[in-house]
Amino acid sequence: MRGAVIHAPGDVRFEELDDPKIIHPTDAIIRTAVTCVCGTDLWPYRGAEPVDQPHPMGHEYVGIVEEVGSEVTSVKPGQFVIGSFATSDNTCANCRAGYQSNCVRREFMSTCQADHVRIPNAQGTLVATDEHPAEQFWPSLLALSDVMGTGWWAAKAAEVKPGSTAVVVGDGAVGLCGVIAAKELGAERIIVMSRHESRQKLALEFGATDIVTERGEEGIARVKDLTGGVGADSVLECVGTPEAMQQSLRSTRPGGNVGFVGVPHDVAIDGQELFFSHVGLRGGPAPVRGYLPDLIQRVFEGRINPGKVFDLTLPLEQVAEGYKAMDERRAIKTLLKP
Amino acid sequence: MRGAVIHAPGDVRFEELDDPKIIHPTDAIIRTAVTCVCGTDLWPYRGAEPVDQPHPMGHEYVGIVEEVGSEVTSVKPGQFVIGSFATSDNTCANCRAGYQSNCVRREFMSTCQADHVRIPNAQGTLVATDEHPAEQFWPSLLALSDVMGTGWWAAKAAEVKPGSTAVVVGDGAVGLCGVIAAKELGAERIIVMSRHESRQKLALEFGATDIVTERGEEGIARVKDLTGGVGADSVLECVGTPEAMQQSLRSTRPGGNVGFVGVPHDVAIDGQELFFSHVGLRGGPAPVRGYLPDLIQRVFEGRINPGKVFDLTLPLEQVAEGYKAMDERRAIKTLLKP
Repeated sequence: MRGAVIHAPGDVRFEELDDPKIIHPTDAIIRTAVTCVCGTDLWPYRGAEPVDQPHPMGHEYVGIVEEVGSEVTSVKPGQFVIGSFATSDNTCANCRAGYQSNCVRREFMSTCQADHVRIPNAQGTLVATDEHPAEQFWPSLLALSDVMGTGWWAAKAAEVKPGSTAVVVGDGAVGLCGVIAAKELGAERIIVMSRHESRQKLALEFGATDIVTERGEEGIARVKDLTGGVGADSVLECVGTPEAMQQSLRSTRPGGNVGFVGVPHDVAIDGQELFFSHVGLRGGPAPVRGYLPDLIQRVFEGRINPGKVFDLTLPLEQVAEGYKAMDERRAIKTLLKP
Repeated sequence: MRGAVIHAPGDVRFEELDDPKIIHPTDAIIRTAVTCVCGTDLWPYRGAEPVDQPHPMGHEYVGIVEEVGSEVTSVKPGQFVIGSFATSDNTCANCRAGYQSNCVRREFMSTCQADHVRIPNAQGTLVATDEHPAEQFWPSLLALSDVMGTGWWAAKAAEVKPGSTAVVVGDGAVGLCGVIAAKELGAERIIVMSRHESRQKLALEFGATDIVTERGEEGIARVKDLTGGVGADSVLECVGTPEAMQQSLRSTRPGGNVGFVGVPHDVAIDGQELFFSHVGLRGGPAPVRGYLPDLIQRVFEGRINPGKVFDLTLPLEQVAEGYKAMDERRAIKTLLKP
C-alpha cells in the first residue's frame, strides 16, 4: 500500500509501505474512503514537536472494512465505517463513564494518511452506517472522526447550554466545528475570535453571532463588552498555546466553564488566578466514540455539515502539498482521496 | 472595643481598638457572639504571607446586630445574624449566578477577631435567624461563616453526587467539613487523607468510610486501590499546596472532578497533564451566602454539627494562645468568646 511518512519538519513524503495485517484478534483492516490532514499534524511538521525518526502520519479516517480479527463481531467486511482518532474497547470503566478516549486499552491512530489502515480495538471503535453513504456525505462523516467530535466535546466540556453565551478561541477546523456544536447545543450568542476572513465567513455560516478580531487584553475586554461586563458562560479553547489558554480563562464569567481541546504546548495554569476566577476547566482528547451515533444521525439529517471545513481536496499522493497549504494558511483543512 | 492585631509572624496581640462605625449606608455593626481562628490565618502567622504592617485579623463571625446603615432593611438591631467571610450585595450578575463570593462589590472580612465588627454590604451578606439560637448552636452556626460553607462548596465544586466516591485531601477544619458535605450530598464512599489520630476520629464520626495515611505516589496508589483502579469521582482539595493539588488531580478518575478550596500557594498546574487526565477542576472562595439558609436549617435540625471542629475554646483575650495551639497542631480550630 501507499501512505504518508514524515521524515523531518517540513518533509512529508508519499511512499510505498507494507500492507497492514491483522496483528491482534481485536483488529480490523479498512480500505480508506477519505482521510485528511489535522491541525495537530502541523506541530511536528513545523518542528514544534520532534521527529526522531521517519514515521507514518494521520489519525482521521472513514472507510470500507476489508478484514476483521476473530474477536470482532460488531462490524463485518464490506461495511462503511467511521471511528475515532483514539481507539477504545468501549467496555472498560472509563469508556462506561463516557471517556472512551481514556480507555484502558486506548491506542492513538497514527497511520491513517494511507490507502489501507489497521484499526486496533475495532469492536469498540468502529461504527458502521446502515448503508454505504453517498459520496457527498463522506467529508462530514470524516470530520466526525476528529475535528467535529472534538468541537462537540469542547462545547460539552465548556457546558454550553440552551440560551447561553459561548466564545470560541481558535478559528481552525476544530474551532469552526465548535461553533457548529455550540449552535446545536443551543447557545444564543456565539462569539468567535478570528482574524481570517474566509474563516470568519464559515464561522458565521455555522452560526456565529459575533466576530472578535482583537487578541490578548483587548480581546478579553471586547468579550466582556459583549457579555454584560462579566464574561461568557462557556469558552471553547481550540488552540493549545499559553496565549489561547489565558484568553479563554479571562474571557469566562465567574462560575463559567472553559473546555480546552487544543493539545497544550508549554501551558501552565496559575493556581491562584484560577482560584479567584471561579472558572471551571476541563479538557482532553475528545471521547468521539460516544458521540458518533448521534453525530452521524445529525449529518445524514443535514442538521450539521462539518465537511465544509475542507476547503482543499487533493489526491492522497499529493499529501505533501496538503500539509504545505495548511502550514501556509492557504487551506483550513485538506481532504485526501486515495 | 478590643480585638486581635497581627504585628509580625508569630506575634498576635489583643489590643484596644477604635469602635467600628457605620461608614457606608450599606454597613451594619454587630456585637460578636463568637468568632474563631482560621487555617488561612496561619499563612501570615507562619510567615508564608508577608505582614507589611500591623493589622486586625479574623473573618468568621456570628453576632447580634447593633446598628444598621440607612440602606439596610433586611436585618435590624437585636437580631442574631450569620454572614460570609466575603461580603456581597447578593444582586449583581455574579451573585445571581450563585457566585456571591465574586460579587462585584465584594469585600473580604478581616477584622472579626474582635468584640464588635463592621459588616459591609450588610443587606446582601447577613442572614438573621428566626429567634436567638441557644448557645449550643453557636459553634456550628459560626462554622457556617467559612469552614462549613467552604467544605460544602468543595463538595459542590467536585460535583459530589448520590452514590459517588469522594476523596478529601486535607484534614483541617475545612477538610473535616468537606466530609460532612460529601456525606450530606450522598457520597457512598468517603476517603480521607489524614495522619492525625484526633482528626481521623472526627472524620469517621462525620461519615468518612476510609482513612488513607500514605501521601504522594503511595497515597495516589492507595486511592486507586480503593476505587477500582481508576480513581475517585470527586476529590476535595482543602490545603492549597502544590503537593495537595497534585495528590488531588492524580487521585481523580478520568471525567471526575476536583473542587479546590485551599487558597493556592505557589501552585502551577501543568496544562498537558490536566489535558490527558480528563479531570474537571473548579475552585475559589466559597459562595457561602448562597448556602446559608439551607445550612442554617441543617444545623437547627441536627443533621450536621460542624461546630465539633472546635476542639479548643478560649476567651477572646487569649487569641494569641488560640493561634499558637493551631500552629503547633494542638488544636484543629480555636473558638473565641468575647
